[in-house]
Amino acid sequence: MTALKPRIGIIGTGAIGGFYGVMLARAGYDVHFLLRSEYDVVRQNGLQVNSALHGALHLDAVQAYRSAADMPKCDWLLVGAKSTSNPELAPLIVEAAGEDAKVVVLQNGLGIEEGLRQVLPSNIHLMGGLCFICAHRSALGVVEHQALGGVNLGYHSGPAETQEQQQALVEAGVVMFRAAGVDSSAAINLAQARWQKLVWNMPYNGLSVLLDAGTAPLMSNPDSRALVRSIMLEACGAAAACGYPVPDVLVDRMMKSTDHMPNYLPSMYHDHVHGRPLELDAIYAAPLAAAAAAGFAMPKTEALYQTLCFISARADR
Amino acid sequence: MTALKPRIGIIGTGAIGGFYGVMLARAGYDVHFLLRSEYDVVRQNGLQVNSALHGALHLDAVQAYRSAADMPKCDWLLVGAKSTSNPELAPLIVEAAGEDAKVVVLQNGLGIEEGLRQVLPSNIHLMGGLCFICAHRSALGVVEHQALGGVNLGYHSGPAETQEQQQALVEAGVVMFRAAGVDSSAAINLAQARWQKLVWNMPYNGLSVLLDAGTAPLMSNPDSRALVRSIMLEACGAAAACGYPVPDVLVDRMMKSTDHMPNYLPSMYHDHVHGRPLELDAIYAAPLAAAAAAGFAMPKTEALYQTLCFISARADR
Repeated sequence: MTALKPRIGIIGTGAIGGFYGVMLARAGYDVHFLLRSEYDVVRQNGLQVNSALHGALHLDAVQAYRSAADMPKCDWLLVGAKSTSNPELAPLIVEAAGEDAKVVVLQNGLGIEEGLRQVLPSNIHLMGGLCFICAHRSALGVVEHQALGGVNLGYHSGPAETQEQQQALVEAGVVMFRAAGVDSSAAINLAQARWQKLVWNMPYNGLSVLLDAGTAPLMSNPDSRALVRSIMLEACGAAAACGYPVPDVLVDRMMKSTDHMPNYLPSMYHDHVHGRPLELDAIYAAPLAAAAAAGFAMPKTEALYQTLCFISARADR
Repeated sequence: MTALKPRIGIIGTGAIGGFYGVMLARAGYDVHFLLRSEYDVVRQNGLQVNSALHGALHLDAVQAYRSAADMPKCDWLLVGAKSTSNPELAPLIVEAAGEDAKVVVLQNGLGIEEGLRQVLPSNIHLMGGLCFICAHRSALGVVEHQALGGVNLGYHSGPAETQEQQQALVEAGVVMFRAAGVDSSAAINLAQARWQKLVWNMPYNGLSVLLDAGTAPLMSNPDSRALVRSIMLEACGAAAACGYPVPDVLVDRMMKSTDHMPNYLPSMYHDHVHGRPLELDAIYAAPLAAAAAAGFAMPKTEALYQTLCFISARADR
């Protein structure tokens, strides 16, 4: 039987892992952080979240680890690292996972769970978490939380075989996040939820890199605004062609909510300026391939992806 | 009757006007240059063309003018300035034009002649010239000529009413350029020739600005190369939809000839880095509008245009 307050491991701290880990730890959960570049700083200074919604949060005594082998076995593992590092992270996830562990990948894009599933043992529950949050890391161990913060959870695969069992695990995750003051809901269908998230990610992540601009300038210029909208519509069309139709009102709602956000630089922008790999496979290549397989063309999205491939290849030289 | 060697006026020197003006002057034509920013330097130092094909060419005693009113009346006027300055140039063209003058606009894009025609008196012949040349201005009065150099001419409008009269004037221009060592042909149809030129201009001009890259890196990266090709194919489709089909082999031929060019930074790149207006109307907006009116979509080209509008608007601030 699991303890009342399950033990949570955070794999890859960064902005996402740092924010949710600090929120959960402050709510009394037993949270353990696997860190790489941030280890020394976090051991010494703790974790800091400067939140526009919750004020300045500080976690002093961080249970930090350099190695997954040193971590206690966790009931939940939240993977906040970039999807580009999943191949290297998989063995660490396995190492930190307790019996019947629930692994929640808090990453964007398609094909995330399918890639991880192949390297996780069958006794591990794999779930996807779609984060609706404006946050970025401003320094080692320091997260700036600008707006929003919700997480929608969906079950992907693992020992839970019936819909009821899967739903119960998703609900347990929802309850855990909500108990930490984080808005959370169960996604009826994880694949549909991933497509729905892509409708936002596909325009803004790529255009922020290509045009060196946050959401505010992209939305205030009529031409880039029209391009954002076109790419959102292509993503909706692709989702429907792939069998995961999204609500008709989604594009207008996302445009409107982005208008009301502070000027936000998506994660791909930060990855680009810091010379980190861009999540092009998960956010662009996989959905473009899925759309193409379903016979649906996404020409503006593809043009954006092609320019990003050029930029990414140049950065690698 | 015109003199054996007609008098030629160059309106807007830059790379295009400078190169052709120097070539014509060296061939013994009576060439007069209307200059703005370059006037003092050219008066003092002459015009220099560093040509990969013809060696270092220098024109010492340049017949240079600050004002069109000071120029002698010319038989031919070659307009090498940016299409963005045509509204201000039109009265100067009229001022420098002799009786039955032939005005040749050496500019890229659609709608060029239509715009100028409205402000030129009906006794002036208006022609279009499509330049196939890699050249740029490296300093005031100095042109770097990297490759190619041909000019294809077509009659647009004016007092020549019959096909024969128009053809005779085009041939006279072709003979003039050829006498100056410049490859030149008559374009059967000016609008078709303009579309054909756009097939090259639409991908390379815009992508050079967007990706800060010349033709060589754009062609060597497989993703940007595929994007170049897609945009070329959209331009071919638009040309056909507008009633000006281009040869099927054009895209392959252009890709191949670009592969064999030195790394070339198109004029829009130079305009961008020097903070000059981009020729977005002539090279993108007008062809996109023509294609849309013909019911043909150019989504990748439109996406490129929209990003360029964003970049251009930001540069204007």
